[in-house]
Amino acid sequence: MAACCGAVRGFLFEYDTPRIVLIRSRKVGLINRAVQLAILAYVIGWVFLWEKGYQETDSVVSSVTTKVKGVTMTNTSTLGSRIWDVADYVIPPQEKNAVFVMTNMIFTLNQSQSHCPELPDDNTECNNSSCVPGYVSTHSNGIQTGACIPYNSSIKTCEVFAWCPVEDDYHIPNPAFLQGAENFTILVKNNIWYPKFNFSKRNILPTFSSSYLKNCIYDAQTDPFCPIFRLGKIVEAAGQNFQEMAVEGGVMGLQINWDCNLDRAASHCVPKYSFRRLDNKDSANTISPGYNFRFAKYYKDSSGIETRTLIKAYGIRLDIIVFGEAGKFDVIPTMINIGSGLALFGVATVLCDIVVLYCMKKRYFYREKKYKYVEDYELGTSET
Amino acid sequence: MAACCGAVRGFLFEYDTPRIVLIRSRKVGLINRAVQLAILAYVIGWVFLWEKGYQETDSVVSSVTTKVKGVTMTNTSTLGSRIWDVADYVIPPQEKNAVFVMTNMIFTLNQSQSHCPELPDDNTECNNSSCVPGYVSTHSNGIQTGACIPYNSSIKTCEVFAWCPVEDDYHIPNPAFLQGAENFTILVKNNIWYPKFNFSKRNILPTFSSSYLKNCIYDAQTDPFCPIFRLGKIVEAAGQNFQEMAVEGGVMGLQINWDCNLDRAASHCVPKYSFRRLDNKDSANTISPGYNFRFAKYYKDSSGIETRTLIKAYGIRLDIIVFGEAGKFDVIPTMINIGSGLALFGVATVLCDIVVLYCMKKRYFYREKKYKYVEDYELGTSET
Amino acid sequence: MAACCGAVRGFLFEYDTPRIVLIRSRKVGLINRAVQLAILAYVIGWVFLWEKGYQETDSVVSSVTTKVKGVTMTNTSTLGSRIWDVADYVIPPQEKNAVFVMTNMIFTLNQSQSHCPELPDDNTECNNSSCVPGYVSTHSNGIQTGACIPYNSSIKTCEVFAWCPVEDDYHIPNPAFLQGAENFTILVKNNIWYPKFNFSKRNILPTFSSSYLKNCIYDAQTDPFCPIFRLGKIVEAAGQNFQEMAVEGGVMGLQINWDCNLDRAASHCVPKYSFRRLDNKDSANTISPGYNFRFAKYYKDSSGIETRTLIKAYGIRLDIIVFGEAGKFDVIPTMINIGSGLALFGVATVLCDIVVLYCMKKRYFYREKKYKYVEDYELGTSET
Repeated sequence: MAACCGAVRGFLFEYDTPRIVLIRSRKVGLINRAVQLAILAYVIGWVFLWEKGYQETDSVVSSVTTKVKGVTMTNTSTLGSRIWDVADYVIPPQEKNAVFVMTNMIFTLNQSQSHCPELPDDNTECNNSSCVPGYVSTHSNGIQTGACIPYNSSIKTCEVFAWCPVEDDYHIPNPAFLQGAENFTILVKNNIWYPKFNFSKRNILPTFSSSYLKNCIYDAQTDPFCPIFRLGKIVEAAGQNFQEMAVEGGVMGLQINWDCNLDRAASHCVPKYSFRRLDNKDSANTISPGYNFRFAKYYKDSSGIETRTLIKAYGIRLDIIVFGEAGKFDVIPTMINIGSGLALFGVATVLCDIVVLYCMKKRYFYREKKYKYVEDYELGTSET
Repeated sequence: MAACCGAVRGFLFEYDTPRIVLIRSRKVGLINRAVQLAILAYVIGWVFLWEKGYQETDSVVSSVTTKVKGVTMTNTSTLGSRIWDVADYVIPPQEKNAVFVMTNMIFTLNQSQSHCPELPDDNTECNNSSCVPGYVSTHSNGIQTGACIPYNSSIKTCEVFAWCPVEDDYHIPNPAFLQGAENFTILVKNNIWYPKFNFSKRNILPTFSSSYLKNCIYDAQTDPFCPIFRLGKIVEAAGQNFQEMAVEGGVMGLQINWDCNLDRAASHCVPKYSFRRLDNKDSANTISPGYNFRFAKYYKDSSGIETRTLIKAYGIRLDIIVFGEAGKFDVIPTMINIGSGLALFGVATVLCDIVVLYCMKKRYFYREKKYKYVEDYELGTSET
Repeated sequence: MAACCGAVRGFLFEYDTPRIVLIRSRKVGLINRAVQLAILAYVIGWVFLWEKGYQETDSVVSSVTTKVKGVTMTNTSTLGSRIWDVADYVIPPQEKNAVFVMTNMIFTLNQSQSHCPELPDDNTECNNSSCVPGYVSTHSNGIQTGACIPYNSSIKTCEVFAWCPVEDDYHIPNPAFLQGAENFTILVKNNIWYPKFNFSKRNILPTFSSSYLKNCIYDAQTDPFCPIFRLGKIVEAAGQNFQEMAVEGGVMGLQINWDCNLDRAASHCVPKYSFRRLDNKDSANTISPGYNFRFAKYYKDSSGIETRTLIKAYGIRLDIIVFGEAGKFDVIPTMINIGSGLALFGVATVLCDIVVLYCMKKRYFYREKKYKYVEDYELGTSET
């Protein structure tokens, strides 16, 4: 009991601190301080100021809505004069984080379920007996009946049961059908949230006036925060040619970067827009270059037979990619970095010890001072 | 060779431990232990227990499907009595991580491509000669022909080539057209996965009975895990008024939080639902408040002429936002935090040293004990 | 001034290093080195080599487009022979990061707004007077008029105002209507980006030839990088039966893992595909198993009355889930890990001290060597 008490008292009332050799040497002193300074500069300058090591970070959670505006007119022999508005060229009418604007298309009017010659290619051209009934491949438009019938005056192809007539997509309209899409505008409404910090903000900044918002168009230089984008400008900003891209379509990324330092005022947390083409422009080494898909409008004639207009829609899909990290002071990362920094200070001592004990002339003298040798096997001790 | 052997033996068989001054002082001892205790408490309590610093974390990967149910009836002069079901008001019929429920709309029936007066506003009202052929602006419904024709008995506007008649969206139906949408239910099926831990779970918990799932409605108090939500309740839970929101539409966030401590049993890993309005309610300082988009249904009459019904659909888009972090014990973060904690213990010694060597009365006495002064330039040494 | 100068000179030109007791003992020396070796092995082997603790990591930002190909034929009494192509079975025609392929369906042709008997179930079967005018429940197809009329020769149900005739979805076609969907192919184009490292790559690798890309089909063994997937193979790879899944539909995850070590050449950064079923297969304990939704095609007959074909579409939704982390050497995490590692070295000294000072026979001898006792309250000092 008394022994225990003594141990506790010893534990509580004792303080142990390492014994230090204090060497008064210009050379070693300066090396030591220089190394310490370097470590301090690294810890404070790089870890804390540059990389903001004292901050807890969080990734953005975001919601995006878009609204396209603009009309354009086309004049073709098949369709005559025709006006195109939002309901016509945005497919599907609403999407999350994305919007598709049709810029080019191949129409196949009045398709119905029946028999007709397949589109000619290496596999479908035939001479009387090479068609296999029931054959269907990945690239087929329908199922072969086995007959070989004339596609036009010179070519015969296998007959298929399909939506007829089959689509002929060998010739893509160039220039693009809806050239005018260059002037369409896209309003992007983006609401972000950092759950860890319960911080939310919109890309429509509170400093904007209503009249500014009605008329502004985004421009990296003059209107960097306007949320309305001209489609042509987006494509140009990504270093692409709009009219070229409009022909085969493509995928554009509108990137909104919300990197925010929440230790500063919320008004400093603003979106930064950038633009990138997400698909590969080179048509070499790629399959189905650009971006297109097929959809159909279905009609029923008075006798109840279903016909459809098949549209192969080429166009620009705009993916709105929201990313970013917010940082805010937090105790944990600060402590981790301070701890690591302190540990690095040990490196200064190790380095200087190496210099002092191995490289200097008087190394034996210093070693004697630093070390006390205790022999285990023989009881003689070589005390300094 | 012998020298080398000796060095290796020296390296292997020697053990160096710092020499310590053990000061028997109540004051310093207590300060020392108090500081060490504080650091220990911080490391264990805060870093390990509170922030779970011993865990590796992973972000959630998720898949969501939704299913809306409900019918409602409307009675208007234009359309007569009409019933609305899922196929009518969910547009597009399926989306990933989102669902749109139409609550209000502006119909423009029987549009066809032709010439008609533009909707009157500051730019389109005209007196005979102010219309420019070919003019089209962002807000136009079509392309001006140059003529100025009567819009109604009192107003003349520029004639446009467009889908005619043009849509008049000045008057939004209020109360909302599909008021009954308040009672629609949305089943949300959510499957999550933490790839690092290969842990997956569904929001339909295994403890549910089939009959419970058929009839339950989510309620924060009574049914916090039921995956079926009443649309009106979602909006209310976000502090909004459904009938008000239904008029102009809006974007709602259904947030599913899957923060899980995987060191505990999997059954403790359950979703936490919360609701937030993602667009801004204030119509001040905003463009196109609420949420709406336009789509059309296309028809062909017996003579082959295409007409369409244009619908400006206002409604509630429900974004299902799944987020969360799972934590599980892992060696690396544990070691990083222990390492930092140990380094912080050094701080206790530094602090007490400052007290002992600079603040106490007997500081010169202690300094003498702690330090051994070695002069470099003069060989005299002041040994303690 | 002179004092200050002296202090600065002292600070700059002094170097303090702990005084060390160097104990020449085989046992303790070996313990010490073994512990140090273990810590070194842990730090280098585990933290640095295995967990790549020297790398900064970044999460992937991705863009996905898909393209489905394939046709199939069905032959039913209601519809006759009918061919189905992409425009028919992909709904909606384009989606971000997902694609839906219809595999089964329930048709309800020629619905129009009128009165008809409700689908019989526990709540709708009636005997003359049990129907409530205006009643509508979550599972209703329309609004009850109050009448009770014959559904067929044996059953009477409540009359509703609805899209009539109401859909009868009690019998799901089995085998699935579009069995042939097994052979449809899906081209997945995926472009990824690591913003922190400004590194981007596509899943169509530059080493592919065009002819390879036209004909390849993904296979885990033979063609692990081919971006074209056979729908049936995807389902099989997830351990499911396609024909079974096709009946009620389901959600499949196509996971693309882009874990990359950017310290190596970019050509080593390749996608890794894996497949998982995201919904629960067990129909027990689940509501609306599989995946389905309803959509309609709207028609207008010559008299202007709107009819629709309601389709309850069952099918496979393929979610393309892109995830991954890229790592690249960075100073901060390296330093944090080195710092923690160094701090852990302190543990070796602590452990050996415990052995030496508490467990060994000669512990009192060693303690005397290590410690210098300084008494505070009495000025006598017990110098070693």
